[in-house]
Amino acid sequence: MKKQKEEKPVLPVADADTPYTPSPDLIYVGDQEASDTVVRVFDFSTGELIEKQVDDLPTLAGYLGAEELTWIDWVGLKNVGMLSGLCERLDIHPLHIEDLLHVDQHPKVEDTEHYTLVFLRRLHRPAPNEELQSDQVSFVITNSELITIRESDHGVFNSVQARLRNSRGKIRNMGADYLAYSLLDTIIDGYFGILTNLEDQIEDLQDEILAKPEPELMIKMHNIRSDLLIARRSLWPLREAVLALERSPAITRETEPFMRDAYDHTVKLADSLDFTRDLLNAAMESYMTAMNNRMNETMRLLTSISLIFMPLTFLAGVYGMNFKHMPELDWKYGYLLCWVVMVLIAVVMVCFFRRRKWL
Amino acid sequence: MKKQKEEKPVLPVADADTPYTPSPDLIYVGDQEASDTVVRVFDFSTGELIEKQVDDLPTLAGYLGAEELTWIDWVGLKNVGMLSGLCERLDIHPLHIEDLLHVDQHPKVEDTEHYTLVFLRRLHRPAPNEELQSDQVSFVITNSELITIRESDHGVFNSVQARLRNSRGKIRNMGADYLAYSLLDTIIDGYFGILTNLEDQIEDLQDEILAKPEPELMIKMHNIRSDLLIARRSLWPLREAVLALERSPAITRETEPFMRDAYDHTVKLADSLDFTRDLLNAAMESYMTAMNNRMNETMRLLTSISLIFMPLTFLAGVYGMNFKHMPELDWKYGYLLCWVVMVLIAVVMVCFFRRRKWL
Amino acid sequence: MKKQKEEKPVLPVADADTPYTPSPDLIYVGDQEASDTVVRVFDFSTGELIEKQVDDLPTLAGYLGAEELTWIDWVGLKNVGMLSGLCERLDIHPLHIEDLLHVDQHPKVEDTEHYTLVFLRRLHRPAPNEELQSDQVSFVITNSELITIRESDHGVFNSVQARLRNSRGKIRNMGADYLAYSLLDTIIDGYFGILTNLEDQIEDLQDEILAKPEPELMIKMHNIRSDLLIARRSLWPLREAVLALERSPAITRETEPFMRDAYDHTVKLADSLDFTRDLLNAAMESYMTAMNNRMNETMRLLTSISLIFMPLTFLAGVYGMNFKHMPELDWKYGYLLCWVVMVLIAVVMVCFFRRRKWL
Amino acid sequence: MKKQKEEKPVLPVADADTPYTPSPDLIYVGDQEASDTVVRVFDFSTGELIEKQVDDLPTLAGYLGAEELTWIDWVGLKNVGMLSGLCERLDIHPLHIEDLLHVDQHPKVEDTEHYTLVFLRRLHRPAPNEELQSDQVSFVITNSELITIRESDHGVFNSVQARLRNSRGKIRNMGADYLAYSLLDTIIDGYFGILTNLEDQIEDLQDEILAKPEPELMIKMHNIRSDLLIARRSLWPLREAVLALERSPAITRETEPFMRDAYDHTVKLADSLDFTRDLLNAAMESYMTAMNNRMNETMRLLTSISLIFMPLTFLAGVYGMNFKHMPELDWKYGYLLCWVVMVLIAVVMVCFFRRRKWL
Amino acid sequence: MKKQKEEKPVLPVADADTPYTPSPDLIYVGDQEASDTVVRVFDFSTGELIEKQVDDLPTLAGYLGAEELTWIDWVGLKNVGMLSGLCERLDIHPLHIEDLLHVDQHPKVEDTEHYTLVFLRRLHRPAPNEELQSDQVSFVITNSELITIRESDHGVFNSVQARLRNSRGKIRNMGADYLAYSLLDTIIDGYFGILTNLEDQIEDLQDEILAKPEPELMIKMHNIRSDLLIARRSLWPLREAVLALERSPAITRETEPFMRDAYDHTVKLADSLDFTRDLLNAAMESYMTAMNNRMNETMRLLTSISLIFMPLTFLAGVYGMNFKHMPELDWKYGYLLCWVVMVLIAVVMVCFFRRRKWL
Repeated sequence: MKKQKEEKPVLPVADADTPYTPSPDLIYVGDQEASDTVVRVFDFSTGELIEKQVDDLPTLAGYLGAEELTWIDWVGLKNVGMLSGLCERLDIHPLHIEDLLHVDQHPKVEDTEHYTLVFLRRLHRPAPNEELQSDQVSFVITNSELITIRESDHGVFNSVQARLRNSRGKIRNMGADYLAYSLLDTIIDGYFGILTNLEDQIEDLQDEILAKPEPELMIKMHNIRSDLLIARRSLWPLREAVLALERSPAITRETEPFMRDAYDHTVKLADSLDFTRDLLNAAMESYMTAMNNRMNETMRLLTSISLIFMPLTFLAGVYGMNFKHMPELDWKYGYLLCWVVMVLIAVVMVCFFRRRKWL
Repeated sequence: MKKQKEEKPVLPVADADTPYTPSPDLIYVGDQEASDTVVRVFDFSTGELIEKQVDDLPTLAGYLGAEELTWIDWVGLKNVGMLSGLCERLDIHPLHIEDLLHVDQHPKVEDTEHYTLVFLRRLHRPAPNEELQSDQVSFVITNSELITIRESDHGVFNSVQARLRNSRGKIRNMGADYLAYSLLDTIIDGYFGILTNLEDQIEDLQDEILAKPEPELMIKMHNIRSDLLIARRSLWPLREAVLALERSPAITRETEPFMRDAYDHTVKLADSLDFTRDLLNAAMESYMTAMNNRMNETMRLLTSISLIFMPLTFLAGVYGMNFKHMPELDWKYGYLLCWVVMVLIAVVMVCFFRRRKWL
Repeated sequence: MKKQKEEKPVLPVADADTPYTPSPDLIYVGDQEASDTVVRVFDFSTGELIEKQVDDLPTLAGYLGAEELTWIDWVGLKNVGMLSGLCERLDIHPLHIEDLLHVDQHPKVEDTEHYTLVFLRRLHRPAPNEELQSDQVSFVITNSELITIRESDHGVFNSVQARLRNSRGKIRNMGADYLAYSLLDTIIDGYFGILTNLEDQIEDLQDEILAKPEPELMIKMHNIRSDLLIARRSLWPLREAVLALERSPAITRETEPFMRDAYDHTVKLADSLDFTRDLLNAAMESYMTAMNNRMNETMRLLTSISLIFMPLTFLAGVYGMNFKHMPELDWKYGYLLCWVVMVLIAVVMVCFFRRRKWL
Repeated sequence: MKKQKEEKPVLPVADADTPYTPSPDLIYVGDQEASDTVVRVFDFSTGELIEKQVDDLPTLAGYLGAEELTWIDWVGLKNVGMLSGLCERLDIHPLHIEDLLHVDQHPKVEDTEHYTLVFLRRLHRPAPNEELQSDQVSFVITNSELITIRESDHGVFNSVQARLRNSRGKIRNMGADYLAYSLLDTIIDGYFGILTNLEDQIEDLQDEILAKPEPELMIKMHNIRSDLLIARRSLWPLREAVLALERSPAITRETEPFMRDAYDHTVKLADSLDFTRDLLNAAMESYMTAMNNRMNETMRLLTSISLIFMPLTFLAGVYGMNFKHMPELDWKYGYLLCWVVMVLIAVVMVCFFRRRKWL
Repeated sequence: MKKQKEEKPVLPVADADTPYTPSPDLIYVGDQEASDTVVRVFDFSTGELIEKQVDDLPTLAGYLGAEELTWIDWVGLKNVGMLSGLCERLDIHPLHIEDLLHVDQHPKVEDTEHYTLVFLRRLHRPAPNEELQSDQVSFVITNSELITIRESDHGVFNSVQARLRNSRGKIRNMGADYLAYSLLDTIIDGYFGILTNLEDQIEDLQDEILAKPEPELMIKMHNIRSDLLIARRSLWPLREAVLALERSPAITRETEPFMRDAYDHTVKLADSLDFTRDLLNAAMESYMTAMNNRMNETMRLLTSISLIFMPLTFLAGVYGMNFKHMPELDWKYGYLLCWVVMVLIAVVMVCFFRRRKWL
């Protein structure tokens, strides 16, 4: 088996007539550093469950094809060679292997005779104030195996693993499709969390806008908008993918109502996303209006103050003139009178603007 | 019957192989406090009507399966155990029981062989100035039973109950589907009320905007927009659900024209919602334009006043200068002349701005 | 026949097992005062025409079922009892009778075995500066009768009535469907008139905006927008309704090309409405831009005038200072020089701003 | 043959049982003055071509029904009687005759057993700075005749006529459908010219906006927007009409690929129209932003100049005060120092604003 | 073979019954100068590969129809006569030859019995700061030939040519359709590059806007918007074309999964384009808001400074009046007190505006 150096890494398999074992550094196409590969195998039937962490291909291959259901949970895409080796044992088409390794797939489902491929994306926020990120999670569903390939762990599948270990319920009795459904369901739940969080952020924002429209809010709004764009990018194809999966031959009749339920959830998600976007637009509109109002108020303040002081300053200027014959200057109460007039003007003006609510 | 503690409350049934009796605190997922459960049974045929309030499951179960039509009107979701018990007696699928208990379903219809499930949402405004809220109302329609499950009462079904008690008409003769239609119809009427109210609010707002565009109107507009978003969220799936119900096998031929009428109403509702949203957008646009006009007027006032006083103050400044040789200062009527010139400038300016409607 | 008091007037029939004779005050649901009922009967064949005004049900009923074509033109919805009586004689379904009496139906067509119902809306403007109003016009088409029910008259059908009286042409030879088409056609013509009028108004407005963007135009624009919203509300379902009517069994083969022509007209109407809305949006945009331009000009005027007078006033202030040693004050031509400098500054400034077109 | 006066000119035929010969003044419904009627006949086969201008109906009728292909090119709608006479000879349905005479049809195709009607609109600009106008061009295609009816000439069909006279190629060998295609093609080319011209105008405009955003550009933008609205109004139904024509039985198999090509062109046209509209929107946006920027600059100029002169004028005012004990006034270099301070303030201010790019 | 001068170059073939050899200057319709024609032939089977540059038609024709797969890579459209000669040998329909020569085709696929035509557009940026340009790339796929016709080279197909030369893999074994797929794939990759670059530009822009919203950014935004419009114009029909190609009979079963993969890529491209446009809109919105904020700040600065200096200047004016009896002027500490008051006013004002964040 000779390794062959490829010039163009994007779709290299297409041209190969030798078995496909790409060099890992060329293949992994994700924008994060590939985390170390951890492979965990769950081999179980209703009665018993074996859970092991496996590091080499031969051991892994030993679990394939057995009668019990085997779940291989592959986390991290560093050890690409081993992964593609595994895929070959399962007779996966070279184009599909590539798709599994290029972690920028849109959610989609590919049905073949022997296996069904499901590509999903999981949203997560690396740190409280950072942008949302989306990881690829792919499922390979065969008759007796489920292989899940994830870019990173974050404990998403922990709850399902715990149910597998503790319970003797459905999840142990039913096939790979039901297990896939359970995992898909935790991913969908993650989307709900993200959207609810964004909705809450917008509602807080809205309150802040109505209370005090500061320019800083603009940056917050911008961040939420970015997050929504990222969420929509995964969510829309996700809905299609779940629908396709529901209709896929990989899904048995018993699992179908669960898949339909999952599909209902994605529809609700898409609807929530629309709602959230409308909320954000409404907040944006409020912000713009509030900014406009503030500008208006500032202008009115300036205008009313100018209207008060201009006549006063003018009057003072008049009696600062040096004409020889200015009778008022010689009056005994001239100065007093002048003050009286000026105060009067000011009071009238202030009252006028108060009434119009400019001050 | 052993109760089983679930780690993940959202879809816990999926994994259970024991009968389902969830602990109530875990299950009820509504954003209001669950009101006390009140269960009222109407058992009736054309000739007679029995109406009772029931508190325990066995009594309730006694009404099931009889020949007369039984309407169980369940209000409040506190006593979840009894409700799920009832559902099990009716052989309702665990996933559906969950949907009945999670009161955040979108309007939808689920047909099975034995029963039809209808999920609806009812809009109501808890207090005059609060946001709209939407409650879940679900129907379980079987051959001889109708079970309605509501989050709260608010007297929505009172009129139908009164017709049931007083009349010997259609509502007593026809089946569960006609009764369901009558209840659905009162819910749809509620939407009309909400939308008409919003439309009226917008028209008042529009008048206020044209009369006096105050910043306070912005908050009103924002509230109406929120209400419209909430209404749309229930209304769009409602239309689909009513259409699905019309085509459902649960609806007999005699009830069909009534269902079609109800569907026509939801179409009209959706249309009214669009109309209301367009009205609001038009009001928003008027407001923005009016604010802009006001800003323009303020600027013109400032500009015209500045243009009047600047030359005057300048003139006064000139004759306040201390040059030795300033012939005007010694003229006998210099001061008078100065005033004449200044008044002239002012008058010309005022006329000029009056003509351009700046003042 | 016992009259039955209904608690809930909106859909009261549903529950009645007695013949339906609702009390008129409860039923008529229009936002105008119901005008007095005037019923005119045209009973005609190719050879002869009888035209009569009829006031009681029995006389009216005498015209039904005859071989000649009978057109009952019912104007005004005050005498609801008589109308519903007539409907019952024609075996019209209670739900349909209600629809005829509730004058807020959307345009739609309902086919049954015995008759076809057509609901239309007619637009009219009560007074030159008032909002558009839409009246309901409904047709009941049977084999040998056409009943038209209108909220108000306004002479809409006069031209058709005149053709009926004078001509011996098609309108007398063909059936109820052709007569219905002729009436529908006059209603569609009315829409064209309304839209053309709105289009003209917008074009006038546009000219005014380009000439002189006054705030008053905003109110005009708002009124046109309201009218367009009202027109759209009737027009969109109208198109669907005419299409449905074209395909209805009530339309004979000879009338079909005329119906198709009518449908083409509604398509053109919908298109004109879109065009008109786009025109209005363009006008709105022009207005906003023009307002912005004006604001800009105002600001520039203020800025340039301030820039001219500020240095002048400053200079005058300087030579109004009372320092002991100010050599300029003692110069012989100091005052003159000061004026020269000030005029120079002013001229330079004015030239500068003229060149930049700020003044 | 008795002429019959019609009260309602819009669809008068409907009621006529006599042959249709409307009075021309009532019928022609175009917004331009009807130009004089010029009728030109091309009667040709592969071998020979007869071209004649014809003024009376009988001569014209002599050409009909012959074996050679006859093209009647009718320009101007003044002589309506003759046109409707011709149409009757060709057995055209009265409703279709009306459509031919009412020159406000949307592009559409009407197939009957004996003939196919094509309604098109041609765009042209009467004078360089005027609005676009759209003329109706209709085709009547029969087995051996093509009748084209145009509101005005403008030499649109000259190139095809020249090819007919000179060439012995396809245009002489193939049927009426190919001739119709050739004419349709010149009309479509006209649209390309109009759109390209608009696109160029927008690009010039965009350059002007980035260079110097003057208010005059607003009027240009408004005119282009109007032209686009007019173009869209013809173009959208044109696409549908050409598609319908491609599928029409009037089109022979040999002409079909040419029609498909024409359809491809209309798709490209529609796409170009969208592109042009997007370009205009982008230009509009640039303009608004540029205006905003200018406003900002003006405000900054005003603000910075005010900030420079306000302290200076204040200082001058202080030393113009008449307090008895003002030590500075008696200093020998008081006045000089005052100037030094004032110049310093000014210089610091200017530097400050320069650095922030406000000046 | 007589050359025929055409009056109307756009669709001249239609009328020709002589073989088609247009004069090159009339035909090439591209907006760049036609680059010199370079024709490169690859004639290959699994075993061997002949690569030659060919300058005359007879040599070129010698390669046609052979058993080995022949790829003729035609770059530059100057030598139009030779190209159309080649097309005639391949029996290509005259309308299609024209399409190949008019380099403004939208992406589309044309299937005939003997060959399949694919029109694509390639995006490239001639120089770093110039607008995107789109070149036409067309494929003629027959059983044993692939002819690619490109406006310009830019080395797009270099990688495929290199694979052809070096590898003995799939690309040498499979048919013309697989080769076409490989070339199509490099073109699609080019789009990804362009979009990623635009996305990066927008993200940079967004950062600049949040940091410092300068008017220069407006021009950058405008350029990106233009590029997006150009990209969309090619991309939308590209997706349709690739879908049509996937379903075309020219694509063998083995190549189909690769074509489907290519189609998935175009779907992803369209999605990325939407995402990029939304990003740009968000950036635009941020920019407008930022500009608005700046205006607000400027206004506040002006207003607060005016409010500080107006009372001070007024005070100074008051004590510059020349009234005889002004007691304050004679106070010993009058001047000092005056300063104290003025400083106090200033300090209070500054504190006030500081607190409101206006300064």
